[in-house]
Amino acid sequence: MPITGRNASLTRHNGGGAEGETFPMHKQWGGRFEGATDALMEQFNASIGFDWRLYAVDIRGSLAYAAALEAVGLLTPNECAQLTSGLHLVEAEFDAGGFVAGAGDEDIHTAVERRLYALVGPVAGKLHTGRSRNDQVATDLRLYTREQIDGLDKQLCAVQTALLRRAEEVGEALMPGYTHLQRAQPVLVAHWLLSLFWPLQRDRERLTQARQRVNVLPLGAGALAGNALGIDRQLLAQLLEFDALTPNSMDAVADRDFVAEVLFAGALIGTHLSRLAEDLILYSSAEWGFVTVADSYSTGSSLMPQKKNPDSLELTRGKSGRLLGNLVALLTTLKGLPSTYNKDLQEDKEPLFDTFDTLALTLPVVAGVVTTLQFHLERMASSLDDGMLATDVADMLVRAGVPFREAHGLVGQLVRRGEVLELPLRELPAAELVAVHPALTEHYESIWDPHRSVAQRMVVGGTAPAAIKVQLAAAHAACGITDDHVD
Amino acid sequence: MPITGRNASLTRHNGGGAEGETFPMHKQWGGRFEGATDALMEQFNASIGFDWRLYAVDIRGSLAYAAALEAVGLLTPNECAQLTSGLHLVEAEFDAGGFVAGAGDEDIHTAVERRLYALVGPVAGKLHTGRSRNDQVATDLRLYTREQIDGLDKQLCAVQTALLRRAEEVGEALMPGYTHLQRAQPVLVAHWLLSLFWPLQRDRERLTQARQRVNVLPLGAGALAGNALGIDRQLLAQLLEFDALTPNSMDAVADRDFVAEVLFAGALIGTHLSRLAEDLILYSSAEWGFVTVADSYSTGSSLMPQKKNPDSLELTRGKSGRLLGNLVALLTTLKGLPSTYNKDLQEDKEPLFDTFDTLALTLPVVAGVVTTLQFHLERMASSLDDGMLATDVADMLVRAGVPFREAHGLVGQLVRRGEVLELPLRELPAAELVAVHPALTEHYESIWDPHRSVAQRMVVGGTAPAAIKVQLAAAHAACGITDDHVD
Amino acid sequence: MPITGRNASLTRHNGGGAEGETFPMHKQWGGRFEGATDALMEQFNASIGFDWRLYAVDIRGSLAYAAALEAVGLLTPNECAQLTSGLHLVEAEFDAGGFVAGAGDEDIHTAVERRLYALVGPVAGKLHTGRSRNDQVATDLRLYTREQIDGLDKQLCAVQTALLRRAEEVGEALMPGYTHLQRAQPVLVAHWLLSLFWPLQRDRERLTQARQRVNVLPLGAGALAGNALGIDRQLLAQLLEFDALTPNSMDAVADRDFVAEVLFAGALIGTHLSRLAEDLILYSSAEWGFVTVADSYSTGSSLMPQKKNPDSLELTRGKSGRLLGNLVALLTTLKGLPSTYNKDLQEDKEPLFDTFDTLALTLPVVAGVVTTLQFHLERMASSLDDGMLATDVADMLVRAGVPFREAHGLVGQLVRRGEVLELPLRELPAAELVAVHPALTEHYESIWDPHRSVAQRMVVGGTAPAAIKVQLAAAHAACGITDDHVD
Amino acid sequence: MPITGRNASLTRHNGGGAEGETFPMHKQWGGRFEGATDALMEQFNASIGFDWRLYAVDIRGSLAYAAALEAVGLLTPNECAQLTSGLHLVEAEFDAGGFVAGAGDEDIHTAVERRLYALVGPVAGKLHTGRSRNDQVATDLRLYTREQIDGLDKQLCAVQTALLRRAEEVGEALMPGYTHLQRAQPVLVAHWLLSLFWPLQRDRERLTQARQRVNVLPLGAGALAGNALGIDRQLLAQLLEFDALTPNSMDAVADRDFVAEVLFAGALIGTHLSRLAEDLILYSSAEWGFVTVADSYSTGSSLMPQKKNPDSLELTRGKSGRLLGNLVALLTTLKGLPSTYNKDLQEDKEPLFDTFDTLALTLPVVAGVVTTLQFHLERMASSLDDGMLATDVADMLVRAGVPFREAHGLVGQLVRRGEVLELPLRELPAAELVAVHPALTEHYESIWDPHRSVAQRMVVGGTAPAAIKVQLAAAHAACGITDDHVD
Repeated sequence: MPITGRNASLTRHNGGGAEGETFPMHKQWGGRFEGATDALMEQFNASIGFDWRLYAVDIRGSLAYAAALEAVGLLTPNECAQLTSGLHLVEAEFDAGGFVAGAGDEDIHTAVERRLYALVGPVAGKLHTGRSRNDQVATDLRLYTREQIDGLDKQLCAVQTALLRRAEEVGEALMPGYTHLQRAQPVLVAHWLLSLFWPLQRDRERLTQARQRVNVLPLGAGALAGNALGIDRQLLAQLLEFDALTPNSMDAVADRDFVAEVLFAGALIGTHLSRLAEDLILYSSAEWGFVTVADSYSTGSSLMPQKKNPDSLELTRGKSGRLLGNLVALLTTLKGLPSTYNKDLQEDKEPLFDTFDTLALTLPVVAGVVTTLQFHLERMASSLDDGMLATDVADMLVRAGVPFREAHGLVGQLVRRGEVLELPLRELPAAELVAVHPALTEHYESIWDPHRSVAQRMVVGGTAPAAIKVQLAAAHAACGITDDHVD
Repeated sequence: MPITGRNASLTRHNGGGAEGETFPMHKQWGGRFEGATDALMEQFNASIGFDWRLYAVDIRGSLAYAAALEAVGLLTPNECAQLTSGLHLVEAEFDAGGFVAGAGDEDIHTAVERRLYALVGPVAGKLHTGRSRNDQVATDLRLYTREQIDGLDKQLCAVQTALLRRAEEVGEALMPGYTHLQRAQPVLVAHWLLSLFWPLQRDRERLTQARQRVNVLPLGAGALAGNALGIDRQLLAQLLEFDALTPNSMDAVADRDFVAEVLFAGALIGTHLSRLAEDLILYSSAEWGFVTVADSYSTGSSLMPQKKNPDSLELTRGKSGRLLGNLVALLTTLKGLPSTYNKDLQEDKEPLFDTFDTLALTLPVVAGVVTTLQFHLERMASSLDDGMLATDVADMLVRAGVPFREAHGLVGQLVRRGEVLELPLRELPAAELVAVHPALTEHYESIWDPHRSVAQRMVVGGTAPAAIKVQLAAAHAACGITDDHVD
Repeated sequence: MPITGRNASLTRHNGGGAEGETFPMHKQWGGRFEGATDALMEQFNASIGFDWRLYAVDIRGSLAYAAALEAVGLLTPNECAQLTSGLHLVEAEFDAGGFVAGAGDEDIHTAVERRLYALVGPVAGKLHTGRSRNDQVATDLRLYTREQIDGLDKQLCAVQTALLRRAEEVGEALMPGYTHLQRAQPVLVAHWLLSLFWPLQRDRERLTQARQRVNVLPLGAGALAGNALGIDRQLLAQLLEFDALTPNSMDAVADRDFVAEVLFAGALIGTHLSRLAEDLILYSSAEWGFVTVADSYSTGSSLMPQKKNPDSLELTRGKSGRLLGNLVALLTTLKGLPSTYNKDLQEDKEPLFDTFDTLALTLPVVAGVVTTLQFHLERMASSLDDGMLATDVADMLVRAGVPFREAHGLVGQLVRRGEVLELPLRELPAAELVAVHPALTEHYESIWDPHRSVAQRMVVGGTAPAAIKVQLAAAHAACGITDDHVD
Repeated sequence: MPITGRNASLTRHNGGGAEGETFPMHKQWGGRFEGATDALMEQFNASIGFDWRLYAVDIRGSLAYAAALEAVGLLTPNECAQLTSGLHLVEAEFDAGGFVAGAGDEDIHTAVERRLYALVGPVAGKLHTGRSRNDQVATDLRLYTREQIDGLDKQLCAVQTALLRRAEEVGEALMPGYTHLQRAQPVLVAHWLLSLFWPLQRDRERLTQARQRVNVLPLGAGALAGNALGIDRQLLAQLLEFDALTPNSMDAVADRDFVAEVLFAGALIGTHLSRLAEDLILYSSAEWGFVTVADSYSTGSSLMPQKKNPDSLELTRGKSGRLLGNLVALLTTLKGLPSTYNKDLQEDKEPLFDTFDTLALTLPVVAGVVTTLQFHLERMASSLDDGMLATDVADMLVRAGVPFREAHGLVGQLVRRGEVLELPLRELPAAELVAVHPALTEHYESIWDPHRSVAQRMVVGGTAPAAIKVQLAAAHAACGITDDHVD
């Protein structure tokens, strides 16, 4: 049984590894403390239950920090080598699932250092020189976020690719376009599919720009006042591939804007996916019948044997709630905090992890649903009705010199006559037409071809086949589809 | 290492139990399906990773349902006995941590039934007769919520008790009361502590009232249209200790109001705790120095050896964010859903579990912090300054017949004179007083006793010692403290 | 053009009334201040732009307070009479739209007192004796909220009444019931309509319970420490019809729980209305065609002459957003505030007013939409298909002794056979039936009457006509419909 | 009395202008409708009460659209000139406050066109040719948002400038830096002030990037399918100074991402301002006494004559709630909507307007508070205590070869000894020092100069005076202060 999302935990690392090494002090910070920490408080305070996910980035940060300590002479080359190989060992234990969290491991930083001590001895106590968990955790979180953004970008691209391929596949097939969920005007099926593509493109742009603000190094800020031992922050940035340095150490340890930005981007992605899901849930209803969701993305009913439900899409839609909830959680936590680091900030991680986990599971499912979706193009085409071309009748009058506002009113009268006479618009007798406006009779019959209607909408972004070709090319260019994105 | 909150998972149940029994069908609902479910989709769809917590209430619901099936003759007494003992076995496996989730266990209902089948054979297939997971999960969730509310009530009471005991302990000690975080008027320390008590009393009232709406039985609603096999819903309600039956089956499977209500109650509790925490964080700063948080509820700094930080309170304050986030998550998920059950509703559980878990850990920590808090009563008393009795000067003028609005202005002038002359209010020379108002000189010296000031505020709810006695008695009565609450 | 919601403003009161009276002091609190307030700051700080709505309750509170001042001898009977008649004059000016806000009127309390001074002279300066704006505004807001809750209850009842009348009107007409927006089982149209009734009943219960916590008097709490002049709070409560007194003055001036509760109730009402709206938007689409929204609650398109859009329902659905936003706004504002009154609390009013205004406009529109809705009962009936009775086939097998789980699987096979053979379920040849299970052939033909299907669901809350009769009676009783509710 | 924020309304435009002109049709879209719109529904549906603010951008958009219609021959040059001068007249009426909204003016688009008709006659009916309110309102909102972002950028810069100037002014003055609101290490006052500067810089970056996505033209998308009359969208973009064209018409009329982005940016600005406010509220308390807020940004108490409250800052902190509420409102409204335009989208405007209005008032107030703030530098300096240099002692041991982790523990012991002996750290007798570690005695006395401590933190972003100089220069460069920003 796969355990995912907020349920993933360190317990899967249980099973091997050394335990019981004596660590010199009760805690990293316990020197001045007298009594023991209350047991519930210890549990309340501990973040190791979720921040173990940062082990790889934490170790990466420590490797760079060791190098920087060596560069300013606070470690000998030999000490640095010891720490480096020790850290690699700890990482290997984590990678192999063999790391065992100990009772005093309140967070991933403590756990790694405790284990490092067990492996390399007292020299481990030199690693934290001039560093604080305040700048350390900010660095870890930025490394992690950067990595996750890159993964998210690929997954968004995969959904885009799926949409784009289906859009290419359906050619010039037509369907009703809706506004207010009422039939409005004919559009190309490809046009609708591409309308779901572009919001994801904006999402990717936002993430790319947010990544610039993520990729700024806080290490060297110390607890709040800046490193006092002359550490070379440029070197650290280079080793950890950051583009810039945080300009103010007090801000550096407090700043969680980058988390908020990612949570917002996630909430907006969720909103976009909820639209895609809503469209497909509607279109896969018996009443619409435009698409069929593949069995592999549907589930059944425990009571009703005939049911096939689009659970994949309903969950996608539903998860927009948790994505917004995560954003609200963080911003509310940040609200009203005074400057620099406050422990409240520990609450930044779970919403961030949950947003990444949620999207990492949702996006591939959405890509799968789109890829395997069955289109009922005939049903779509047969759902076009005369009323959807009423605007074309008005446009005809406009071309005959009638002001549009008047033309709109005249066609409105036609529609009402049609309802009264229970006739489709195209079958209104000539007398009725003439009564409304003489110019109506001229080209009235030529109106009723929906292909003619869409062909006229050839402005940039319009639904004419010619415009769709341009749009498909633009989509290809925007998305930058390459093989490694798709597979 | 304790794994708590959203990280708790079924994996802790791994280690024993039988596996590999063949279940007759791939899934509970797979009859009409052709292809297999996509692997990621299976993971996306599965709720077993979090809803395993419902195992006890799920089994309790099934025991009652079996009894009801027997009562209408759909099970023989023997079959019912088989199911009953089988269900007890499954529960025992869960209790002992020996239940092993299998690959097809998409949710707790499926998992229990699958295991039941392995234990008792085909008669297990009769348990779900006329039941749907839609009414089953709603029943489970209500049973679970009812139980959790009862626990929450006790934990709130424990915090109240801690506040009440400290309030009794500090007697008539005085401290500055603040508005706008500026010193305002003297109050009893007990008055301040009790001001943190009453919001929790309102929380308990809200929960008690919400519980009435939780304790309504949906079982028998079927998938949406109601049970067709004549099940006796009154019998079910009796067995499961529900007070009422849901009056409409379509509403019954869709209704998550009770979850929203609990999440709101949780968010408001979080807000109340954030106020308590803010007060104590401020009062434990070097600048205030009114209280010291016990070492057992504090932590240190990894960099700064002198630091002792009130992490327990900062986390308490910070968690108000996730509690609000959980509420927003659910309400956003519910928004715009059409009638009856939609799979989006599966997103109700994680926020609910997280809110209960968060409070179950936070409240005992808060109770502990309050109980072990050290008050610096002398420092509090010495922080009272003359300005805080300015209102008493105005009141004196009022008693001398000066309209309050005018008296307020006159005392404001005194305050300004004091600032100009750099004198405390009480040391203003008589000439200054007379210049402002002749009546000022009369009783001016008697003003400056803060005990006299508080003693006058003896209205109900006021800070006079006499009023506090009444308030303490009311608090005792409201809280209903008993030994099992406290320990 | 009616200006409503958050746009309503005091400016509509411009046009008459006296202006220019000199008020003795620059502000109610300016005595100790030196420089003038910054002009933008004055605008930023002022609440008169929205809290003028409290004028009636503010004056009501002051009338009671004057009586209480007289009762303890702080006003002579004559002074009290002067204040009383002056306050009535001010109210009359407001009622007539003749009140003119002055430059220094930072809030409604100041404005009323300033005007009172102009009308009755210096005795006006006695009204605020022992009172603070902190307890005054809390009292005002509770009076206002109490009044608005009562109005809201009536409006909710009006929507319920509309639903109930339509439910009675449609008799035993059938429609498809949906889960996951897929056709599930037949239900009575009345059953669906009533499923929209009960959530509103829960809303009313919540409001009634919240009202208990609203209806507690804070007046006499003073700024934070309690009234020092012996005011009789019980008398105040009696005059203002409050059920209880706040038990702690520091809590009394800080407590905005009652606002949060109402905003939550509003957000949940919004969620319920969004479901009703979603159902009706779907059912009024061309694809469903179950209902037609009256022209009087629809609008057209500026471009497409044929369009008729259910704007009333879309706005209803959309406004669930602002109702949730209002709740989040308040809870975020409250988060992390220290004890007693902080100016942040001024932000409580606009969300509260907006929630009441929004609902006061939305609910009557919804009632109107429901009342004027046209049902297409034949279209509903003809949308029932064989698959919706698949559960009935399974139930038949259950009655023949097949365990339900097995029966479900067998009917699933039938469904698949039907799809393969492109035959409706009822037309499957006997050979197919026998191949699946011999018991199928026995009563197979009798299954296909949906009226027979619904008639079996006669449990409490089920969709059988007999159960609906009971439900309608329960709805009548719950709602307590009377003429003054409806008109 | 200034009416601001969400209370501003069209009513201020009442007072002149022509009324009563007959408009050819009941509404822009009423042709096919039979009955009248329900009166409450009309009020519910109308947006003119708030969208009148868009009049200038609506008219600007129409001027460009008229030019584009002329360019494709749908207007003669003469007709275009008539429309152009008519539109200018309407705008002048609005500018002068002389526009009178009429009964049928459901939105600003209708109102402008109705008035245009009255001024120029039937040719007004040609303006809407091929245009829909769907693309029109999206265009208006983008023009408005672009303009407001530009204003917001200037206001943010003004706050930055105020901070920067004060930072320059305080030179090398020291204050305690806090973490967890406990004294941590000495920092420069300038460092703290600059730590409030950089978050605003990130806000401006985000807005600049969001502006790119705002500045994309939707006009020409029609109702959803694209303009059918060959309008030149590039020409429109050029006239309206848009950088790009929306690539898909269905997305173009639905996309409100740009609103969400701005609301998020606003919520984050609110969070940043809440931190600045919290710091200053704390620092202006009697207990801290670090700063005094100017009288011009403070208010008094209606009851307590001595009080001076930092209302400006409390309101600033409190308004973070409404800014987050606005974001939640929009995202919840968007959640689950199907493709293209749905009337729910009308709910986008009020939160957007409110966020811009709130910030437009808050930011100048904050700038004013900062500019007029009085710093008590001596009090700040005297609040530095020995404990704050404990890390420096540890660093000394590190330089003597002690591993940091061990050094941290040793200094922790010193701290405890100091508490036991009730001695400040620097006064610990040599024997105590030696007992902890021999190396301690060597340079112990040199530790206790806080200027020496800060001087060591000269890494980029550190608090050393040398680093602050660099930081100030960077801040100047980042902010791009020019005279028009500041004044």
